[in-house]
Amino acid sequence: MNKQILLVERPVGLPKDSDWKLNNAEIPELQDGEILVEQDYISLDPAMRGWTKDVRSYIPPVGLGEVMRAGTLGRVVKVNNHPNFKLGDVVTGIGGVQQYSVTNGKGYQKVESVQRPLTEYLGTLGMPGMTAYFGILEVGELKDGEVVVVSGAAGAVGSVVGQIAKIKGCTVVGIAGGKDKCDYVVNELGFDACIDYKNENVNAGLKQHCPKGIDVYFDNVGGEILDAALGRIRMHARIVICGAISQYNSETTVKGPSNYLSLLVNRGTMRGMVVFDYAARYNEARLQMEKWLNEGKMKSKEDVYEGIENFNETLHRLFNGQKNGKLILKVSE
Amino acid sequence: MNKQILLVERPVGLPKDSDWKLNNAEIPELQDGEILVEQDYISLDPAMRGWTKDVRSYIPPVGLGEVMRAGTLGRVVKVNNHPNFKLGDVVTGIGGVQQYSVTNGKGYQKVESVQRPLTEYLGTLGMPGMTAYFGILEVGELKDGEVVVVSGAAGAVGSVVGQIAKIKGCTVVGIAGGKDKCDYVVNELGFDACIDYKNENVNAGLKQHCPKGIDVYFDNVGGEILDAALGRIRMHARIVICGAISQYNSETTVKGPSNYLSLLVNRGTMRGMVVFDYAARYNEARLQMEKWLNEGKMKSKEDVYEGIENFNETLHRLFNGQKNGKLILKVSE
Repeated sequence: MNKQILLVERPVGLPKDSDWKLNNAEIPELQDGEILVEQDYISLDPAMRGWTKDVRSYIPPVGLGEVMRAGTLGRVVKVNNHPNFKLGDVVTGIGGVQQYSVTNGKGYQKVESVQRPLTEYLGTLGMPGMTAYFGILEVGELKDGEVVVVSGAAGAVGSVVGQIAKIKGCTVVGIAGGKDKCDYVVNELGFDACIDYKNENVNAGLKQHCPKGIDVYFDNVGGEILDAALGRIRMHARIVICGAISQYNSETTVKGPSNYLSLLVNRGTMRGMVVFDYAARYNEARLQMEKWLNEGKMKSKEDVYEGIENFNETLHRLFNGQKNGKLILKVSE
Repeated sequence: MNKQILLVERPVGLPKDSDWKLNNAEIPELQDGEILVEQDYISLDPAMRGWTKDVRSYIPPVGLGEVMRAGTLGRVVKVNNHPNFKLGDVVTGIGGVQQYSVTNGKGYQKVESVQRPLTEYLGTLGMPGMTAYFGILEVGELKDGEVVVVSGAAGAVGSVVGQIAKIKGCTVVGIAGGKDKCDYVVNELGFDACIDYKNENVNAGLKQHCPKGIDVYFDNVGGEILDAALGRIRMHARIVICGAISQYNSETTVKGPSNYLSLLVNRGTMRGMVVFDYAARYNEARLQMEKWLNEGKMKSKEDVYEGIENFNETLHRLFNGQKNGKLILKVSE
C-alpha cells in the first residue's frame, strides 16, 4: 500500500489538519516505460504553500483530492522497460507527499554518483541549493567583493546563498529569527554578521553591518524586512525575489514594499525567479557544490522528521521557524 | 531685477502658496568665465515635488531659502569670457524658478540648431523626452512588436514613451485621466487604446486591451495602477519605475505594490531610472527625436502658462491633471 497526503481543502491562513487527508492507495501496475520509486524523503518547502492556492502562478495549483506536490528523493524499486532508469537508481523528482510514485521519468533526475549524505540531495544539492546558486549568481549578478544581505539566512536557500557569496569574497550579512540561528550562521557558516529580526531592529542592524549600503539583497521573506533592505540599497543594487514566506499565510492582501521607490533613487533592479528555469543547468551547479562540500568550503544541514502522518505539523515548522536546517520528512518505513 | 521663487517651507501634502516666497534679487556681476541667462521658460515636472523633501535621494533636496530647482530654457544675454557660450545662444539647464541665472555653464547645454518650436526643448526634446527615450529603450529593453503599457500617457514623458513604442512596431496601451486625454492619446498620438482610470476599471481595461499580457509597463504614477499592471505582466516582463505621481503628495506611507510577487511568478524585472545618468547621450536622443518630429512620426504638445507669480497654482496642474501636454511656465516678461 502507498500512504499519501491528499489536499482536500484550500488552506486559509496556516494549513490545518483538516485541509489534508491521509490516504491508503493501491500501487498501480507499471505500464510500459514506467518506473516505481520508493520515496525515502520528502522535501518541505515554503513554495508548497503557494501550490495550494487556486491562483495563476508559475505552475498550476494542486487540485483538490490530488496528492500534495513535493520534491522527493527515493530509489527505483521496479522498472517496466525504461530506457534511462534501472533498479536501484537514486532519483530526485517532484514525487509528491507519498511513499511510492509511479512515473514515466519525466521531471526525475538520477543522482549519478552519490558522494554526499542522501538528505543533502534535497537540500544544498537539491532544489533549495539550485535556487540559491542560480539566484545569487545569475539573477543577482553577484560580483566579487560586493555586500550581500540574505533573509531566511539559516534556511535551506539562504544558508547556501550566503556561503556562495562568502566563497566569492563578498561581505555577507544574514537575517534570521533567533539567537541560535544567528550564531549558527556566523559561527558555523562564516557569515560576517547576522541580524536577529525577532530581537533586533533590522533597519539599525543593516545600518551597522552595511555602512556603505547593500549591493545584492536576496529576499526569501518579503514584508517589513524587504522594506528595510530596500531602504539601504546602494547604486545599481539587485534584489532577488525568491520568496515571501512572511506573506504566504496572510489572510489579507500581501504587503507591498513601501520603499520600492528606492529602486528609482538608486537605479536598482528587483527581479523574480523560479528555479525550474535553470533545470538544464542543475548538473553544473550540483557538481560545483558537491566539490565545495567535499572541500569543506560549504556546509549543509538538514532537519529530518519522520512519518507521513506528521506532514502538517512538520510543515508548520517552515512558518514558525522551529527547524534547524533544510526541513525534510522521512516517509519510508 | 531678477524675480525668483524661493522654497521657504517644506510642503506637507500639496504645496501651499506659503511654502514659497516671491523674491526680487539683484542680478550679480559676472565673474570671469560666467554667463548670464535670461530664462524664457521653466519646466514644471513631477520630480520637483521630490526635490522639496528633506530625504536622501538621487540629488540633494533644495535648501530652505534657496531658489526652487527647475529645468529651464533661455538665451545667453551677457558673457564674461566663456569658452563655450556666446551672446544669443539658446541654452537649457537647471536654472531654477527665476528670470535670470548666472552660471559658469556647468550643466547647461547649448541647443545647437533650433529646428523646432522652443518649448519642445523643454518637453519632447528636453528632460521628459530624454526620460522617455532612455527609459523605454534602455531600461525597458523594448523589443519590436511587444505589448507596452504606459501610465500618465498624455503627459510629457508618457506621450513620448508610447509614440516611440509605436514607431518600434509595438502594441501600445495608455492609461490617462479623463476622456479628452484618452481621445488625444489614441486619435492624435496613435496609441492602440487608452484606459481612462477616472471612469474605467483599469484591471478590466488591461485585460481587454492586453489579452496576452504586458511585456513592458512604464510607470509614472505608482499606487493602484502599478498593481493593476503587475497583475497582468507576462513572462520576462520589464517594469520601468520612472515616477509615482500618485504618491508624491501622500502624507502617509507610500503604497507599495501588493502584486510585486507577480515578478516572481513571471520572472519579471522592476527597475528604477533617473534620466541624468544618460546625460552623455542626450544629443543622440535629441537628434533622433527632432528627426521623428520633423518627419511627422511624432507629435509634441506643450501647455504654457505665464507669470512667475503663478508658479504654485500652475504647479498644482501636475497633480490635479488640469493640463494639456508638457507643463511650462513662461517667466520672461
